[in-house]
Amino acid sequence: MMKDKKYLLIPGPTPVPPRVVEAMSRPIIGHRSAEFQGVMERVTGKLKKIFQTENHVFVMGSSGTGALETAVVNLVSPGDKVLALSGGKFGERFAELAKLYGGEVIFEDFGWGYDIDLNVVKKQLDANPDIKVVLATQNETSTGVQNDIKALGKLVAQYDAVLAVDAVSGLGAIDLKTDEWNVDVVCSGSQKAFMLPPGLAFISVSDKAWAKIEKNTTPNYYFSLLKARKNIAKWNTTYTTPVSMVYGLDAALDMILEEGLDNVFARHALLAKATRAGIQGLGLELLVPDEYASLAVTAVQAPMVVDADTLRKVLLKEYGVTFAGGQDMMKGKIFRIAHMGYADKMDVIIALASLEMALGKCGYKAELGAGVREAQMVFVGGEHA
Amino acid sequence: MMKDKKYLLIPGPTPVPPRVVEAMSRPIIGHRSAEFQGVMERVTGKLKKIFQTENHVFVMGSSGTGALETAVVNLVSPGDKVLALSGGKFGERFAELAKLYGGEVIFEDFGWGYDIDLNVVKKQLDANPDIKVVLATQNETSTGVQNDIKALGKLVAQYDAVLAVDAVSGLGAIDLKTDEWNVDVVCSGSQKAFMLPPGLAFISVSDKAWAKIEKNTTPNYYFSLLKARKNIAKWNTTYTTPVSMVYGLDAALDMILEEGLDNVFARHALLAKATRAGIQGLGLELLVPDEYASLAVTAVQAPMVVDADTLRKVLLKEYGVTFAGGQDMMKGKIFRIAHMGYADKMDVIIALASLEMALGKCGYKAELGAGVREAQMVFVGGEHA
Repeated sequence: MMKDKKYLLIPGPTPVPPRVVEAMSRPIIGHRSAEFQGVMERVTGKLKKIFQTENHVFVMGSSGTGALETAVVNLVSPGDKVLALSGGKFGERFAELAKLYGGEVIFEDFGWGYDIDLNVVKKQLDANPDIKVVLATQNETSTGVQNDIKALGKLVAQYDAVLAVDAVSGLGAIDLKTDEWNVDVVCSGSQKAFMLPPGLAFISVSDKAWAKIEKNTTPNYYFSLLKARKNIAKWNTTYTTPVSMVYGLDAALDMILEEGLDNVFARHALLAKATRAGIQGLGLELLVPDEYASLAVTAVQAPMVVDADTLRKVLLKEYGVTFAGGQDMMKGKIFRIAHMGYADKMDVIIALASLEMALGKCGYKAELGAGVREAQMVFVGGEHA
Repeated sequence: MMKDKKYLLIPGPTPVPPRVVEAMSRPIIGHRSAEFQGVMERVTGKLKKIFQTENHVFVMGSSGTGALETAVVNLVSPGDKVLALSGGKFGERFAELAKLYGGEVIFEDFGWGYDIDLNVVKKQLDANPDIKVVLATQNETSTGVQNDIKALGKLVAQYDAVLAVDAVSGLGAIDLKTDEWNVDVVCSGSQKAFMLPPGLAFISVSDKAWAKIEKNTTPNYYFSLLKARKNIAKWNTTYTTPVSMVYGLDAALDMILEEGLDNVFARHALLAKATRAGIQGLGLELLVPDEYASLAVTAVQAPMVVDADTLRKVLLKEYGVTFAGGQDMMKGKIFRIAHMGYADKMDVIIALASLEMALGKCGYKAELGAGVREAQMVFVGGEHA
């Protein structure tokens, strides 16, 4: 095997296209220079198109978790009632943050691998009219569950509460109409569908959310949205922005907008469909049903006889392919195949072909080519030959 | 003028060497992969050499301000007495952070352009034996003042208080022997002497500091050092690390260690000396005396007849050269020339030659070549011809 020929198929960080690498290699300029302000203005305009919003989108130097913390420390004051909707590791993280900063958190756990039940949300909102913030995850990376943010937004909009959505691993891969769907705060990160290395986070804020933020009493500094807002007029960021990453972002946003946002979503849907068909063609079990399966990452239950992490080691060693493992309670039981960002049909083929061979080496007899063929069928849109 | 031929001479972000750009262009790998853990282990070992410490050095995805916030939210609990030593914008920032998170801050302002007076520090520590944290700035970027951290460390070590130093713009340019000088917490950032784009911060923590951190009650999450410590054993970072930046860091640290840390310090000292000689050769006034002048950045008082920011515009427009302006109360009154990181003799020549010409265009008659000649004299170590 060629040591350097690698295939990264994890739900972040994801591969970076050459065009973005090239942009990131430009000479550094001052982050307070007129030239960089021009870049920030241009990039923000494009980001707003991806966020499908007229709200301002802030660019931050942090991981996606930094964006979640930004949402919480600006929205949640000690004693505020928060409804946290969780179905996995990242839902839990959002809730943990709210609790840490003094929120009185109603933790609604739908279970790992399940989506949000809107009836439960409605019941909680009706029973607790003083809920100030609802926290939800668009794409639960730990399980490959995709929540119906449109319906959730419609529901929460009828209450005083603001809706903050962790869209770190979904935005740019899965449709999220921030304004039309009434999502007050949308958090995202660079290293998923945005096709950039980790290091940047993005957050949009609605007027309804600003009204709460202006009354917020939780101290914050690096993550302060009020400070950040003061600098919008000059297209400055409060602190030193990762300049090279912003150059890369500029190029990545061009790629997304040139392809067309709807085409990008359709590509992700196609890759998800093909991946799921291939997995089923191998006789393996998907973790979640089609109904709320993620378009960006697919979680697969390892066969009883195979430890998922051993399988992943074989995949890496023999074929240079990296899948993600299960986290926390799912460790060893599932593996996750990403199809997000700089991903296309052949990445799905690589995933399935290498998986078929690796399963054999781990003692599970999969028919070679069976998964690949199902994926091909999805791609050609035809019948079995 | 060639539009693309630019000379960035500001105290961060600083130019990035081709070798570092090349390293940053490598394909992305998973931040939890064995391969990346190997990179983190190697990089951390090299970072410890630059920090001159046996303490662990944490790598964070944030700007330098994020490292300052990390120091504060982990060390300062509400009601804790904090002695903040300030002589400019960044000293003020450290104090602001401590105040924001509930510290009872004794703010010792030595004035913009002045260094820390150790007698004052001693008096405060004697009068307030309950001071828990002393905050200081190694290299005050806003004024080009360099504080005597060795003497400060020796003093503070005699008390229960821990010493946290903002070395964001100084570390790697100016000597700071973390262990030998008893500096408990050292904060630094990637975009200064480390020759990287902005986006990474570094922080080292002594045992004396850990004892306080373990009792800390201020909530923190993204910036939590206790969480970060739990991940050291596996060479993991708590949240997704900027992978590409860490690759760049690896290469930049190699460059520093190959040159030799003492040689790097000597180079910065030489460039500072030549810059200062050149400025005086032009008849301009330096903001701070030699005694505590920064080796990384030189602040210059604009002549009475010249607005510093107009001068900077001419420099950029006519010669492609960027100096930093004055901040806050110093705006328009000073300009700052950086000589840090990927900087050598010809950068000083560029700074002085362009300055001489730009001054003329702004109505101040500087003898052309007079500053350059003084700098050359420093470089050749000889007498006037």
